[in-house]
Amino acid sequence: MILKKPFTVWLTGLSGAGKTTLAAGVQQLLGQEGIRAAVLDGDIVRKKLFPELGFTKKDRELNVKRIAHMARLINDNGIPAIVSAISPYRSGRASARAVTREMLEIFVECPPEICEKRDVKGLYRKARAGRIDNFTWVSDPYEEPDRPDLIVRTHKEAADRCAERILELLTTRGYIK
Amino acid sequence: MILKKPFTVWLTGLSGAGKTTLAAGVQQLLGQEGIRAAVLDGDIVRKKLFPELGFTKKDRELNVKRIAHMARLINDNGIPAIVSAISPYRSGRASARAVTREMLEIFVECPPEICEKRDVKGLYRKARAGRIDNFTWVSDPYEEPDRPDLIVRTHKEAADRCAERILELLTTRGYIK
Repeated sequence: MILKKPFTVWLTGLSGAGKTTLAAGVQQLLGQEGIRAAVLDGDIVRKKLFPELGFTKKDRELNVKRIAHMARLINDNGIPAIVSAISPYRSGRASARAVTREMLEIFVECPPEICEKRDVKGLYRKARAGRIDNFTWVSDPYEEPDRPDLIVRTHKEAADRCAERILELLTTRGYIK
Repeated sequence: MILKKPFTVWLTGLSGAGKTTLAAGVQQLLGQEGIRAAVLDGDIVRKKLFPELGFTKKDRELNVKRIAHMARLINDNGIPAIVSAISPYRSGRASARAVTREMLEIFVECPPEICEKRDVKGLYRKARAGRIDNFTWVSDPYEEPDRPDLIVRTHKEAADRCAERILELLTTRGYIK
């Protein structure tokens, strides 16, 4: 396979929905095809680059916007980006689309109850105990995408299959061939 | 040629020394060898991602540190980075090295008088007219590297040759083969 045009795959969804796993899966599938893509994980970017940001709507939007600019810079270098970020607000994702231009919004859908049950990082427990403020779904909104480019349901489909579907979308849209 | 290990080429030097041209040259040479690298231009990163930052020592250091984290994230994805940033303080470059780990500090040396004469972006003129504060060399310090990995002298050598020398260094150090 070859890369026809750099793109940004933007994975949005709740904490525990499976975004990180899926990002790694997409990166690996692309890598097997000789296409190297950069994963930008919202948590890691925030922690390393912007530790001063909190979780208010304003700070979340700023984090999302900065990640979008990073993805765009990477795209401008001819390299695809895979963003994994809760990005709970429609407005934030819309601005990310405006910044990145070649963006595919993937809704990583998983019922909140299942995400909370998985609680991979123990964050839901902390949020329920009041030890984390502004935690998406527990004490902060998540605005589901109205018109995502693709929905993957990690509670119904294996992560591998979800990753494959993203590659199929990239092929259909002419980003890879 | 193949990439053996991701790296960050860090180009430091005055405004007008030729960092941007050189970054593009290194990116192109690597690209011809089938190695795709991401260029992070200090001016562009600042403008797009951190427009709130000024040019005080503190803000410059923060900008440099964030660029270093971006380069590291890119390296962690298996992709080389080429940073072009004045990065005038030794301390900032030292922290960049600590963050990026596989960093090659390239001093893009060019006498200030020549940089000012070139004045590609008209910034020296503005700084002299007092319309830009904290402008490196005019009203702000530039601390030359004590032990750069390489010095390229853009007023004595063609940009192409400087770029080649950087590739030679990358080969010698085992990053590309």
